[in-house]
Amino acid sequence: MAYVVDTSKSKDAKLKPISLKSVKLTDNFWSKRIETMGEVTLPLQYEIIEETGRINNFRIASGKMKGDFVGFFFNDSDVYKWIEAVSFYLAINKDEKLEKLVDDVIEEIRLAQDEDGYIDTYFTFERKQDRWTNLKDMHELYCAGHLIQGAIAHHRATGKTNFLNVAIKLADYLNRLFGPGRREGTCGHPEIEMALVELYRETSDKKYLNLAKFFIDERGKGIIGGSSYHIDHKPFRELDEVVGHAVRALYLNCGATDLYMETGEKALLDALERLWDNLVTKKMYVTGGAGARKEGEAFGDNYELPNETAYAETCASIANLMWNYRMLLALGEGRFADIVELCLYNGILSGISLDGKEYFYVNPLADRGNHRRQRWFACACCPPNIARTITSIPGYMYSTSNEGVWVHLYASSVVEVDVNGSRVKIEESTNYPWDGLIEFKILGNARFKLFLRKPDWAKEYSVTVSGEKIQPVLENGYIVIDREWHNEDTVKLELSMKPEFLESHPSVKANIGRIAIRRGPIIYCLEAVDNPWGDVWDLEISKDVELEEEYRDILGGVVIVKGKGYLNSPNNWSKLYLPIKEASSIKREVDFIAIPYYAWANRESGPMEVWIKKT
Amino acid sequence: MAYVVDTSKSKDAKLKPISLKSVKLTDNFWSKRIETMGEVTLPLQYEIIEETGRINNFRIASGKMKGDFVGFFFNDSDVYKWIEAVSFYLAINKDEKLEKLVDDVIEEIRLAQDEDGYIDTYFTFERKQDRWTNLKDMHELYCAGHLIQGAIAHHRATGKTNFLNVAIKLADYLNRLFGPGRREGTCGHPEIEMALVELYRETSDKKYLNLAKFFIDERGKGIIGGSSYHIDHKPFRELDEVVGHAVRALYLNCGATDLYMETGEKALLDALERLWDNLVTKKMYVTGGAGARKEGEAFGDNYELPNETAYAETCASIANLMWNYRMLLALGEGRFADIVELCLYNGILSGISLDGKEYFYVNPLADRGNHRRQRWFACACCPPNIARTITSIPGYMYSTSNEGVWVHLYASSVVEVDVNGSRVKIEESTNYPWDGLIEFKILGNARFKLFLRKPDWAKEYSVTVSGEKIQPVLENGYIVIDREWHNEDTVKLELSMKPEFLESHPSVKANIGRIAIRRGPIIYCLEAVDNPWGDVWDLEISKDVELEEEYRDILGGVVIVKGKGYLNSPNNWSKLYLPIKEASSIKREVDFIAIPYYAWANRESGPMEVWIKKT
Repeated sequence: MAYVVDTSKSKDAKLKPISLKSVKLTDNFWSKRIETMGEVTLPLQYEIIEETGRINNFRIASGKMKGDFVGFFFNDSDVYKWIEAVSFYLAINKDEKLEKLVDDVIEEIRLAQDEDGYIDTYFTFERKQDRWTNLKDMHELYCAGHLIQGAIAHHRATGKTNFLNVAIKLADYLNRLFGPGRREGTCGHPEIEMALVELYRETSDKKYLNLAKFFIDERGKGIIGGSSYHIDHKPFRELDEVVGHAVRALYLNCGATDLYMETGEKALLDALERLWDNLVTKKMYVTGGAGARKEGEAFGDNYELPNETAYAETCASIANLMWNYRMLLALGEGRFADIVELCLYNGILSGISLDGKEYFYVNPLADRGNHRRQRWFACACCPPNIARTITSIPGYMYSTSNEGVWVHLYASSVVEVDVNGSRVKIEESTNYPWDGLIEFKILGNARFKLFLRKPDWAKEYSVTVSGEKIQPVLENGYIVIDREWHNEDTVKLELSMKPEFLESHPSVKANIGRIAIRRGPIIYCLEAVDNPWGDVWDLEISKDVELEEEYRDILGGVVIVKGKGYLNSPNNWSKLYLPIKEASSIKREVDFIAIPYYAWANRESGPMEVWIKKT
Repeated sequence: MAYVVDTSKSKDAKLKPISLKSVKLTDNFWSKRIETMGEVTLPLQYEIIEETGRINNFRIASGKMKGDFVGFFFNDSDVYKWIEAVSFYLAINKDEKLEKLVDDVIEEIRLAQDEDGYIDTYFTFERKQDRWTNLKDMHELYCAGHLIQGAIAHHRATGKTNFLNVAIKLADYLNRLFGPGRREGTCGHPEIEMALVELYRETSDKKYLNLAKFFIDERGKGIIGGSSYHIDHKPFRELDEVVGHAVRALYLNCGATDLYMETGEKALLDALERLWDNLVTKKMYVTGGAGARKEGEAFGDNYELPNETAYAETCASIANLMWNYRMLLALGEGRFADIVELCLYNGILSGISLDGKEYFYVNPLADRGNHRRQRWFACACCPPNIARTITSIPGYMYSTSNEGVWVHLYASSVVEVDVNGSRVKIEESTNYPWDGLIEFKILGNARFKLFLRKPDWAKEYSVTVSGEKIQPVLENGYIVIDREWHNEDTVKLELSMKPEFLESHPSVKANIGRIAIRRGPIIYCLEAVDNPWGDVWDLEISKDVELEEEYRDILGGVVIVKGKGYLNSPNNWSKLYLPIKEASSIKREVDFIAIPYYAWANRESGPMEVWIKKT
């Protein structure tokens, strides 16, 4: 089954996944983007990984080609993530060309693997002697983790074992090398943990689970230096604040959540809950972005969330989604699905251009117009990461549990599920994320609970079942409809999706006196091109202003939010301080237009901001 | 005549000063503070300058005492400023004890002066050889400047020449040493310039004026290192931004303004106007404070005006007053008197405790309760500086010109002036700064224009002359009443003094979303002790709230401003972001009380802030 994360046999996961192959998107939002992946992004990424020597590194390692390793020492991982992205795509879409391409690349990888299972094209020839000498910095286990994830996705999507065999050979090698009584250590960049748990799920071989646990348990002993940057400052179970390199911290949380779902260890869950609370109530951007600081690509202090200098790496938003999706599988609570959705529509989606050809590594929430997406990066973790995320989206939408069927993310689609022994088909129709009306048609007969996520942003909502309005029962962020379903029963969920202003916790200094616009799951921003009356940074909006919405055929089709504000241009101020009345008199009323944050920087450049001054 | 700055013969000064001896304060505000100077502050400062070895340094230099120099190398200047402060006090008040004390100290100084005129107690004995070897850092000319200023004030107040002779001997020595064709150089800390111009005014000896000009002309040649910290990065006439050490920069502007008043050199005035514009529209705190940065005690960039970390040294506010008073004398425009008043009631007055015993060196506009006044400082420039400022206040209140009598600062007082050959007495009655009603009675008969300052903060005002309302003629910030005055004519000026909110220029990042309270010349702040409902930093105020005022017998008698606000406590926020409606619901309405900024930190400690969050 083409699961993204396979918790089907995980004893401490509340939710079971649905295969990518069981979901068919029929919507306008995500299916269009996945199509772009197959037609534009994935072929283009292949060209670039060839062009930049990333595949040649394997050819050189296998001896097929002469030369030396090119690029960053962790460049192998980009190839693995690209295979994973293509695999998710192939799980749903037939594309012989891409399938062939992937198999060819896998063959290059296979040839580059050593007899003992080792593979890392940087540590070849004269650098062979340096293998495993610097776990803290050199990402060998990180690259291994991505290989394993790519191989599992490929196996699940295609049924082929050509890459999975490479992964198993590598994992067995790692298990001979590391573990209790064997070699000590863990990777400076977490990733291997979740990969090994998934390999355990794929193979049912417990040694991979044990090795994942070992790598988590090794942290905080100072073996890799003891820094918070590497999340080695404390044992995992004692953590209470997300610190250090944001992607590393969140990938580690993914692995720990995966481990929890297999072991049910309470100390792990307690730490994860503390970390989640810290992230979500003190360190997360309103877009789902994580990591305030460029220095160390790191989390800042509590409430340190600058806008213009926000780091909010695309990979960190992805890691935030990955972790929250795992927490959702573990506990089945809407608060995690809320973050999955928030990241997806905002902090992640901003990472790629509408045409699928360019990327943001950093996602600031305010900019003067200089920050533009790029075709690639020397450190190219983000492009294949966003590709594997978008191609796997159908896998995040639904789950099942012993009780019934869960809908986490809304989009027009058809899903087939096995629930309580019955095969049921559900047709979902909606114009989400632009409209809050979501309709379901149940095809089949079965008794089960239907769990419909009630997003935290939806303060008002109503539910109709086969034409009759019901009093919704809300449990942990899900509307629960428990009944004997009959063929062609319908459910109509209406989520109020009015644009509204958000205010920040008063300790977020960067947002004092500022408000942001949200409509449904979408965070908005002001961009210069829509607001030619002046500098959008000079706009002030009254929190009492009426916000209007309008569908526009720009940026791939979006609902814009508009209203009246005041242009408070510094140029009109002759003095440094003015009585409020005089200050108001030099402000000019203007009509502003806000667009979804994810769509910014796709047209001509200019100032942008999410948190707007409050008048 | 006991002038503070003697422009009576300055050809390019629009205004002529009035002797301190001609003004008798009868008010409750300043006379009380001047009384405290004589009874508490000046005797206490004497004790401390004795106790800290500052006078012993002179005794050691003269050979009366054995030992080595103690303290900072510029400590002599504190003694000179103390003499200046006492002198201004003695000009108005009879105090034999203080007069004797000053004469004794002057005698110690006189004995410490070398035969050639040199005096600086640091550069004695083995350090004699280092004299004039480091003009950039070692403050020899700075100390000389304060000696000269102290000596002039002493001579004008008492008629005695014991200190003036020391000053002339020193100045003559300096003139033999420095000047065109002689030694090059200028002081790293400006001060000597304005002192030498004043000595020229006192003695009519033009060589002192020439030497002052020389020291100004020497800047910007890199002789003392070329740094902006020393205002040596450009020739003075090319300056267009106040940069570097704030006190140095503003003292230099004082000297340049003094030089302009004697020479009328347009290039000097042009530079001064550029610097003034830059200071007042881009770099000045709402309290009149100057210098945003602790590092280098320096001006920041344009609009860099942080509140909690504001430096705003008391001496810099004093320097701001000194410079603006000189600009006022030169040009006779209200915009300069506005800044004099602003500094006096806010950024300067905050520098001293209500009991006259403790001082702020740094004057932040927001604090958590840790910043408290101190009895003294190792670098004790501020305490005697604030003393000489407060004792000289009556000298700033009035001026004359060929056209008539000018009133710059309002306080109940009686002044006697010579105007157009007639002796006129004016009685002023007011409860300023708490009330905007100011009444004048003219005693005598004369034709002259009465210039009454119309403060920039007073948007509404009315004038009645001998019971008849007149249509005021406004010229450069002054209401001009031109008439033949008859004995017992009265003038009633009413300035509207309602509390109001101020907003900052939008480029001042620290104040985005914040408002400050002003009432008349007074800037207000919130202090914890008056607002026990929570942390004043968590208060939000609507700009539309009604502000009420009330006289209270606290803090020496003040008008407080009160109103309703909202306590937005971080503790009530469980989430990081909330819709405006929910955010509002967790805010609690509270009654706040604001007190004059100058009076803060005189009761129990706690958070304080000037710029309050706007709801």
